[in-house]
Amino acid sequence: MTLNTVTFVSVENMMDLVVSTGIEHLLCQLSQYIEQDFRRWDSFDKISRVASHSRNGVIELMPTSDGSLYAFKYVNGHPNNIKAGLQTVTAFGSLSVVDSGYSVLLSEMTILTALRTAATSALAARYLARKGARTMAMIGNGAQCEFQAIAFKALLGVDNLRLYDIDPDATARCNRNLQRFGFKITTCASAEQAVEGADIITTATADKKNATILSDNMIGPGVHINAVGGDCPGKTEVHRDILLRSDIFVEFPPQTRIEGEIQQLLPDHPVTELWRVITAQEAGRIEEKQITLFDSVGFAIEDFSALRYVRDRLGSANRRAQLDLIADPDEPKDLFGMLLRREAQLQQMSASSRE
Amino acid sequence: MTLNTVTFVSVENMMDLVVSTGIEHLLCQLSQYIEQDFRRWDSFDKISRVASHSRNGVIELMPTSDGSLYAFKYVNGHPNNIKAGLQTVTAFGSLSVVDSGYSVLLSEMTILTALRTAATSALAARYLARKGARTMAMIGNGAQCEFQAIAFKALLGVDNLRLYDIDPDATARCNRNLQRFGFKITTCASAEQAVEGADIITTATADKKNATILSDNMIGPGVHINAVGGDCPGKTEVHRDILLRSDIFVEFPPQTRIEGEIQQLLPDHPVTELWRVITAQEAGRIEEKQITLFDSVGFAIEDFSALRYVRDRLGSANRRAQLDLIADPDEPKDLFGMLLRREAQLQQMSASSRE
Repeated sequence: MTLNTVTFVSVENMMDLVVSTGIEHLLCQLSQYIEQDFRRWDSFDKISRVASHSRNGVIELMPTSDGSLYAFKYVNGHPNNIKAGLQTVTAFGSLSVVDSGYSVLLSEMTILTALRTAATSALAARYLARKGARTMAMIGNGAQCEFQAIAFKALLGVDNLRLYDIDPDATARCNRNLQRFGFKITTCASAEQAVEGADIITTATADKKNATILSDNMIGPGVHINAVGGDCPGKTEVHRDILLRSDIFVEFPPQTRIEGEIQQLLPDHPVTELWRVITAQEAGRIEEKQITLFDSVGFAIEDFSALRYVRDRLGSANRRAQLDLIADPDEPKDLFGMLLRREAQLQQMSASSRE
Repeated sequence: MTLNTVTFVSVENMMDLVVSTGIEHLLCQLSQYIEQDFRRWDSFDKISRVASHSRNGVIELMPTSDGSLYAFKYVNGHPNNIKAGLQTVTAFGSLSVVDSGYSVLLSEMTILTALRTAATSALAARYLARKGARTMAMIGNGAQCEFQAIAFKALLGVDNLRLYDIDPDATARCNRNLQRFGFKITTCASAEQAVEGADIITTATADKKNATILSDNMIGPGVHINAVGGDCPGKTEVHRDILLRSDIFVEFPPQTRIEGEIQQLLPDHPVTELWRVITAQEAGRIEEKQITLFDSVGFAIEDFSALRYVRDRLGSANRRAQLDLIADPDEPKDLFGMLLRREAQLQQMSASSRE
């Protein structure tokens, strides 16, 4: 590794990593990385993400560090982008060495965020859904949908999907994309129909407003709700009455209180941190009839795990490039001298081109 | 511009921009951009930078937005890096469109930070130093030194430099690098000697501890102090007694109270915001004998201005590249479909290579 370059993982590099690894296998490996990092939760610097809200959406920075590596992600959320032919969510991020502060990896994270969100949801469901859960309702069939479905199949064996979206084209596309992954898929005419017989209900809609995707009468005993879509102030998906009947599990409470479904509840409403369930300090599901709800908003440690995974898996050189991103003069104090030497070099090049 | 690529400004691109513009001219233009943005201070989202401290240094994220563009910078500060042959400060950052959240520019910012810090210091000094100031003492001759000197020459006409560093090699290098810029340069054996006869004193040392680069008896009436080096908790350069005799000017008070020289003072010690001086809402220097002090720590708006400047000046295509950083499927909701199409493409490529 040279000092002045940063390994760059483009969108194409990321796609090639996913294709060559196989998405099911990658989601399993990625969830292991996330689980490892959740097991050492206390070793991380943790803050709520830093949000800049505007009329159309939000731009956020999500940093964290374990004292050895530092990661941050830039991510936006703009529900109206779809109308303009743009993605709702795009992201990129970087991994650095804490001891020197030098960045060593810069990566696309639009695809990686979809992967880590799905891997985290499935990881949570392994601790929270009923044993033997095979049927999942998916309400909201946007960009997250296929990733969630495949993660739940790979990690839990879910193979029966019930899809619903207010946009039938989204459902049709999701159905088509998932054909070869071995699911039985039912496309449904309503959210009510979708949840019939479901062990797990995943909500992943994108409207930036308080909506009621799930109302109280739709939720029977024993269900696990994987609430993915609500992730900023004023944006929720699940009716408050359902929250009051559920045992609620979260990533980082200070952030989830602001952004998650639980923004509808009192600030001291009891919730359980997922990492405490994973480390067996608190119970996950304790009985068949219990309603569990994972109030997923996405936390920086998941991005840290994802970048760490990508770094470890970037074996072959054709899955990355080197970016000339860090000014690193031969003599560290002589940053200005770099400019002088470049000027001399350019003059020489210009002189020889005139000869 | 295509949607999925982000304009990339490498270290070499940045050096070529500086060389082709001329550093004096660039510093003048850049200070105008900073001044423009300081004049519309109220239109920015402002937060203190988000710092992650470790044993060796600090890694920071510095975001801001004017409602139309969003900028952030990643920057580290590691004083011990020099011993390992690394830069104390490295940086990179990005500019995005607020309405869509899409990033449009990714740039090296190690050189750009040195430029914007110098441009901001000289801008402040135009409002705070005595008219006709021509002599500047520079204590700390590290990576910032030449940039500061040239900015003060370009913006104020300072042409008499008095250099001192605990490392004589640093002073010699700075002297050598500045030879052709038209200064009279005196290399000094002590900080005390350096400040003799100086109208302006610039301190830019890098130790991460409270130091006393300037003690009270060194500061005569009428001097302007440009305190650049103190920029994190526990890192200061100027003796508290000097602060008590000075009128103190700052960028963003909540950040400077934590990071700047004024961390040595009570939290309600009066300071003046530089933008209020620039907009004539508050006085800058009002008399000859007054001691003024710019407690520079560096604020996100300066990076915003610098990225905006770079974007505007990137005329020719050979000063940038395009990075495949944003996953942008043809059908926005079909992120997963991108993966499937890439897989099909790779299979086809592999099949044709076997034929």
